[in-house]
This record gives sequence, structure tokens and C-alpha cells, in this order.
Amino acid sequence: MGSTQPEWKGKAAAKRSEQLASIPQQWRLSEPLPKPKNAYEYLRTSGLLTPDEVAITETTDATILLRKMASGTLSAVAVTSAFCKRAAIAQQLIRCCTEMFFDEALRTAQHLDEYLERNGKTVGPLHGLPVSVKDGFDVFGQDSTLGWMSDSYNHIFKQSINSFHNELISGGSSGGEGALVGARGSIVGIGTDIGGSIRIPANLQGLYGLCPSTRRIPWEKSGSREYIVPSVAGPMTNSLSTLEIFMDAMLAGQPWLFDPVTMPLPWRKDKAEKPIRPLRIGYYYEDGSDVRVQPPLEQAVRKAVSALSQAGHEVFEWDTSEHRYAYGLWLRGVLADGGTRCQNLCDAGNQPFIDGMLVGTEKDRLTVEEGEALAREIREYQKKYLARWHESKLDALIMPVQPYVGFRPKEWVKSSQYVGYTAHWNLVDFAVLSMPVEVGDVDVSEDFYDGRGSWKDHRPRNESDRFNWEQYQDDPGLVKSMPVSIQIIGGKFGEENAVAVAKAVDEALKTLPA
Amino acid sequence: MGSTQPEWKGKAAAKRSEQLASIPQQWRLSEPLPKPKNAYEYLRTSGLLTPDEVAITETTDATILLRKMASGTLSAVAVTSAFCKRAAIAQQLIRCCTEMFFDEALRTAQHLDEYLERNGKTVGPLHGLPVSVKDGFDVFGQDSTLGWMSDSYNHIFKQSINSFHNELISGGSSGGEGALVGARGSIVGIGTDIGGSIRIPANLQGLYGLCPSTRRIPWEKSGSREYIVPSVAGPMTNSLSTLEIFMDAMLAGQPWLFDPVTMPLPWRKDKAEKPIRPLRIGYYYEDGSDVRVQPPLEQAVRKAVSALSQAGHEVFEWDTSEHRYAYGLWLRGVLADGGTRCQNLCDAGNQPFIDGMLVGTEKDRLTVEEGEALAREIREYQKKYLARWHESKLDALIMPVQPYVGFRPKEWVKSSQYVGYTAHWNLVDFAVLSMPVEVGDVDVSEDFYDGRGSWKDHRPRNESDRFNWEQYQDDPGLVKSMPVSIQIIGGKFGEENAVAVAKAVDEALKTLPA
Repeated sequence: MGSTQPEWKGKAAAKRSEQLASIPQQWRLSEPLPKPKNAYEYLRTSGLLTPDEVAITETTDATILLRKMASGTLSAVAVTSAFCKRAAIAQQLIRCCTEMFFDEALRTAQHLDEYLERNGKTVGPLHGLPVSVKDGFDVFGQDSTLGWMSDSYNHIFKQSINSFHNELISGGSSGGEGALVGARGSIVGIGTDIGGSIRIPANLQGLYGLCPSTRRIPWEKSGSREYIVPSVAGPMTNSLSTLEIFMDAMLAGQPWLFDPVTMPLPWRKDKAEKPIRPLRIGYYYEDGSDVRVQPPLEQAVRKAVSALSQAGHEVFEWDTSEHRYAYGLWLRGVLADGGTRCQNLCDAGNQPFIDGMLVGTEKDRLTVEEGEALAREIREYQKKYLARWHESKLDALIMPVQPYVGFRPKEWVKSSQYVGYTAHWNLVDFAVLSMPVEVGDVDVSEDFYDGRGSWKDHRPRNESDRFNWEQYQDDPGLVKSMPVSIQIIGGKFGEENAVAVAKAVDEALKTLPA
Repeated sequence: MGSTQPEWKGKAAAKRSEQLASIPQQWRLSEPLPKPKNAYEYLRTSGLLTPDEVAITETTDATILLRKMASGTLSAVAVTSAFCKRAAIAQQLIRCCTEMFFDEALRTAQHLDEYLERNGKTVGPLHGLPVSVKDGFDVFGQDSTLGWMSDSYNHIFKQSINSFHNELISGGSSGGEGALVGARGSIVGIGTDIGGSIRIPANLQGLYGLCPSTRRIPWEKSGSREYIVPSVAGPMTNSLSTLEIFMDAMLAGQPWLFDPVTMPLPWRKDKAEKPIRPLRIGYYYEDGSDVRVQPPLEQAVRKAVSALSQAGHEVFEWDTSEHRYAYGLWLRGVLADGGTRCQNLCDAGNQPFIDGMLVGTEKDRLTVEEGEALAREIREYQKKYLARWHESKLDALIMPVQPYVGFRPKEWVKSSQYVGYTAHWNLVDFAVLSMPVEVGDVDVSEDFYDGRGSWKDHRPRNESDRFNWEQYQDDPGLVKSMPVSIQIIGGKFGEENAVAVAKAVDEALKTLPA
């Protein structure tokens, strides 16, 4: 029987053994592994972490840890060690990691502590803060795999699952990163996004996720046909302040001095400050008519919009009638290589293709001229949308991240992968922040639907919509109490603006009458 | 006989008649047209322009005109009228224009004068300043033609020639623009540059020409395969101050609000100020060993470098050994469409191809995958060069614009079109300013050559080098007293830096002992 096993399976198993071996013995769980429904909760309460480790890793505002490390009241080794341990245990529960190099992290932390001791100052603004990066980033001395938008399954590393619910996915394609940050095994995770790959896992794990305009954050592996639809890199965090600290520090490092693609534009703190004037905010609950948004996600938008309105901001409904056309452009762009690159990589490793990956097939493949014509069509759309944005004199748009609260693994494939809510903003290259909003139990009485018909009576419009509707209709309990988010569209190069508006939303929500 | 003439010839002749008709009768020269050797000189001294018109159009610093128009001591109509008249006459001498819409310009000027009268203020920082744009820009209500790097010949508009010498070309592909600004028929001309198309005509006409990094100035028609080597737009002027005023005003208009590609980066005046500290400047006279630079151009670099050194700045020789490899990358990039687009356009108009255009043939055509591989190779080169630039801690590089002082029309084709001196900077996407340097008669005694062998004894290394060498060797008198320039390489997004260094060069040259 062993001799009939494909070669890649043996290699994959060997890699998994190596992976397990990279977890120090004292952080390994004994078999059979526990299978808590909520890994985050388990990590916090099981006693596997000391109270100090829990306190460090439950800190969502990196400023606090940075200040303590800078003053010497907390060592970089203590902080790194706590996050590494939590990540190592999380990995055994939800498979959120690929490469773990804790020893290197701890050696670096040791050096930082010595540096501080010797020089009485930190090495930089993020001194001692451990960060994690999606596997798509090349890290010296580490393997990397190719991800694509799906539910974060991989033949080698297997299924990553949600940090709050072991029957649900962590999202894709930055799903491992999302699960790791959600489980608090990392305080800042860097994901990538070509159609929602940062914002979707952020939504599914209740994180802040920033999908910037292109050329704001260095990221080279934008993928094939990147001149049609490029991907971007961005942070995922458990607090807005951590996200902002990261952006500020990263851009203070002047990445444009070594990356020929990044713009020489530091983090503009003044633009990210909480606005003191009334804002003008567009919103929508659905993008045209393709896939209806499940009630908890619609409620998140309603709550944010209502809070803003009550706080004195102007809100108005935004017309999305062009978005369906735009989604078609995006789809043609991301599928333009006809799946060639992905297939070539699978062939090279003699591995089977993963069913349901959002990659093209031969019929989607564009010639050079077709690709250039599509790029021009997209540019025209971008110009029109940019003009409309500025003519509308708005500060931001608020809308759902995606139509569903959560899926079981492998079901994403069946869902026809509708990512139009997120992908539209990659297409126009606007900066977007996804931000969690607590909605509690959603009261789906008739009033909720504004006469648009109840969820129960919804008539599916297409395959994606049917799946999405049935999924929530048949089993709303599956996703009960799961986090939901909104997207704040900050406009072109509007990273700081999106953060500023998020602060206004946050304040408005806090002052909302119960 | 008439029936055998190809249809396009009739169309072209009709267009030329239309073109002539767009020149008001009172600005037309009588046949036979005068053929002065130096059109600039003729326009200044022939008496065709009134003393006031000469005074206005000979003003090279736009600040002076802008100030006079803002204060009402000079009307926008007077300024526009003077430039239009000079342009109209220049066109009849050197064929520097394609579309002339003087009536529209004068109507606009009239409105501006009325606005100022009524409101006591200008409409903006460039109030009343007429500008010209290369034909490649789409202008509402006007035809446009496709240009490509060559000697500014076109089947419709015929041969554009140099504003200082009627036996020499005006350069390409922004050659008409260069000749027009050189003849002072325009105070700011906007050209485009994918391998030298702004800097070469600027050099041939003694102008300042700015080739910015991509995404600094809005320009959409970057051409096919723009994701491999894009073109950029930039100003050509008779003074540095005019160039700076234009850049400042253009970016103050926030073009990024309507152009999705332009960076939100205003003109950084502080970075463009004359440096008060000693600079560190790299230089070179030749880029490796491909084509030797004719003595007047080498002398321009020597003079600038020597002046800087004597003024207390640090100068050092820059290694160009990688530039030959880079030129190969650039060539593959600009030829990547195999000439398809150009051929299709010729076919559409049933026009013959213009021999010697720098476009590819079938063998140059790259597939999608080859194109992407080339783009990656270029990105790697850009990264290496950017790192080297910053590690070298230099302020700028100074080098020749091109290897030759001037050509007769149609000879460019025979020269094998070596544009490596300019194209290298498009490849690495650095900002470059070309700036005239007065060299007078060049003393080519043995000392000049630093033991590298005299021009006379030069042994040509290749076809381009042989042409270039023979051309100056056989007839140095042809280009005697023609302007020559240097390139100041300002680095990535170093537009302001290049201007600052030009100011230092200017000052150093002024204080140079005679």
C-alpha cells in the first residue's frame, strides 16, 4: 500500500513532522488533542498559559506593551515568549501556522533586551513587538507556499479553522493569519488581499483589517497579471491603535528607499485623527442585487449608520448599480491567466489541484491584447468612480464585508465564492478598513427589512445567493454570536481617512443609547 | 495619375491644408517661405514680430509674465497673442506644430482678462500663461497622432526641424514640442518620454526638460506593455524657474483627485531649494563601452563636474558596468509587442510604415509569460540599483544626455538609434532633469581625453558607435555652436532633488573662473 502513495503525500507528511518538531516540547499538547469549540476562550482559560502570559497576549493595544518594554518593566523575551507559546498551542488546536521559528524570535528578543540594557533606548518604534506574516511572504531561511482565495485548506498544512468556532472556517486567503491573530497568538498579522483576503478573515475573527491602495505597503508577489488586478498587503489586529502604530512605524522605516514600487508617503497622523466635524457618510446594505447579505451583517451596517446619524453625522444611501459590471471586470482580471500559474505549480510538485480555488480555466485565459483592453476598461471605471467619489463630497462609505457570517470548511467551494462586496474596492484601488461591530442577537422582525421582504421569504436570485440564503435559513444557530464587521471605504490612498472614520464610528457606537 | 495616388496621401494633403488654414491670414508668410538657418534668430530679428511681441516671447522666466498679468500691467490676450503669432510663424519655418487652435487660446485669454478685471484676482497660479502639449495628448475637439521615438517625421505633418539649425533634426519623439519651445513659440511644452523623448529634444534645443518618475504627472497613454516599460509626461522650458512654477502649479491642482494613477504628492518646494551644504555628485562620460560620446557633450559634463568640484562639492566617478545589460532589458521591453500596435494603426489608415521607427518586429514579440518574466527581471534590477543609489549616499548623478550633438533628418535611422544614456533612467524609473551647459568651442587637444585616445584615433566598437564617430569626425562644423546639455539624475521620485542640484550646478558654473 505504501508504494502506491503519491510522492507528494510522503513529502507533505514529512513537512508536517518537521512543523510539529519546530514546537518546543514544553509547549506541545498531549494526544489526543483537545477540540474546544472556541479556541480563543480555551487559550485564555484552560490554565495552559500562566496569568502573566494571558495578560500579555490579551493586551490588544500594542502601545501598552511597547511602553512597558521601552521602560524595561516588561522584557522583549517575556512578550515574545508569551505570544510564541500561545501561537504554538493555537496551532495545535486550529492549524493557523505554517512555519514557526520561535527560537529565532526569542534570540532576537534577547538581543533587544540586551540592547536596551546597554544603550538605554529602543532599536525602533516596534522594539520587541512580535509580528506574524502570511505564508506568501518570503522569509529568509523559511519555506513558503502559494495561497489563493479559498477557505485556507492546503494539502500540506491541512485545514485552518476559526479561532472562535471549530466548525467554521477562518476565511481566506489570509485565513491562517486571521485565526492566529483571533486566537491572540499574534498582535499584528500581515495578510494580503486581491479581493477580500484580508477583510474576510478579519470579519470572521472580529479583527481590524486594512486593505490599502496599491503602492502604499511594500508587496512584491502581486501575482500574475498584476497589471490588471494587483494584490496588496496589510495589517490585521485586535485594535485600531495597534493597526495605526504598525502603519506609522512601517512607513517611518521609509520602505520606498529599497522598494521601487512603494510611494514615498509617510503615515499622515493628522488625517487619521478622530474627526471633530460632522462627517458625510454613504452606506449600503447590498451591492445591487447579486447576493443578499445575511441579517447579522446587515445589522452591523445599520447599527453603525444609525449611531453616526444619532451622533450628528450626515448619512445617505450610496448607489451601487454599477458594481455588478465592476465585479465582472474583477473576475475576468483575476482569472486572466487561465489558471496556468497555479496548475504549473501543482504540476511541479506533482500535487493535485485543490478543488474550488478561485483560479481560471483555459476559457478565461486572456491574450496580451485582451489583457491590455481589460486593463484599459478597468482604468476607465476607476476614473469614473474616483470622479463620482469626489463629486459626492463624502468622507467614507460604510457597507458589509461579505454576505455570510460563517461557513463550514469545504463549503466555500459550493457557495460559488461571491466576493463582490470586497473585490469591488480592489478593482477601484481604494483603501478599506474592516472593523468589528457588536450586534448581539439580531431581531429579524418585519421592521428590520424595510419592506424588502423577510429573510425567510427571500427568493434566491442566483446560485451564490441561494447557497448564502439557505445556509443562514437552515441553521442560523451555527453562526450565533460569531463576530461581524463592516467595511469603511476610505477612498484612494484613504488609509488614514478610513482609520479616522473608524474612530468616529467607534465613538458614535459608544454613545448610542442602549 | 491622380487615380493611382493612395487614399491616405489625399487625406494627408487635406489635413495639411486645414492646418495651414488654422493660421490667421495676418500671421502667414508669403511664398516662397524664407528658409533661415536659425529660425530662433530669424523670429527675434526679422521684424515680423513687434518689439513688444519679441519682449514677451523672449521672456524665459514665466514668473515675470505671470506677475505682470496678475497685476494687470500685461493682458493675457497680449501674452497669448504674442506666443500664438510666434508659434504660427515658427510653424511655417520649422514645422513644429500639428494642431493649432489659436482662436480658442485667444478666447480663453479674453475670458481671463475679464475675470481679473471683474474679480480683482487671477483664476489660478498659471493665469494667462499659454502652454503647448505634444500631439500624443488627447485634446478635446482636436485630432491627435501617434508618435514614437524617431526624428519627428510624420507622413501628414512632414519633417520637424531644429529651431537653431535648419539642417538638423529637432529630436524625437517630442521633437515638435522641443522645436516650438526652442523657437520661443511656447513658454512651457509638455512632452512624453519612454527612453529619452523629452530629454533628447531638450538637449538639441538647449532646453530644460524634466523626465519624472512614473505616477508623478498624469499621463494615460503609456502605451502597450506599459507594465514592462512605461512612458512618462514632463515639461520642457527655457528656464529652470518656469519648469518649477509649472510643476508646482500642476501638482497644486491635485491631479490625483481625478487620475487613479497619480501619486498624492505635491511639489515639495523645500526639496527643490538651492542646497546650502556640499553635495556628493557621481558622474560619468560614457555608459560602459557601447557608444562614445562626442566631445562637446563630454565637455558639458566635464565643465559641470569641474565647476561643482571647484565650488567645494564632492565628485566621484560612477560605475556604469551594469548599464549595457540594463539597456538590453529596456529594448526587450519597448519592443515587446512586436510592432503589432504600430502596424495595426498604419493598416487602419492604409498608410506605409515609417522606416526606422523604434518598434519591434515579430521576433521581438513576447508572450504573456515572457513579458511577466521580463517585468520581474526589470524589477530586480530596479531594486538593486535603488539599493546601490542609497548605499552610495549621493545627491545626484551627472552624465551626458546622448552621444551626438545633432543629426541631419533621416540619418537617425542609420545611426542604429542608441538611446542608452537616457533609456537607462526610464528603466530604473528615476527622475531626470536635462539642463543646457554652454561649452563654446571644445578644445580637443590630447589632454582632453585623459589618455583614452583622441576622437580622431577612436576605433568604433559597433555599428552605432561607428556612425556616431564618423558623423562628428567627418563634419564637426555641422553642429558647431549647437546647444548641448547634461542629465542630472535625481533618483526615484527625485524631481525636486534634480532641480535643487541644477541650481547648485548653475551657481557653480557662474562662479567658475573664465
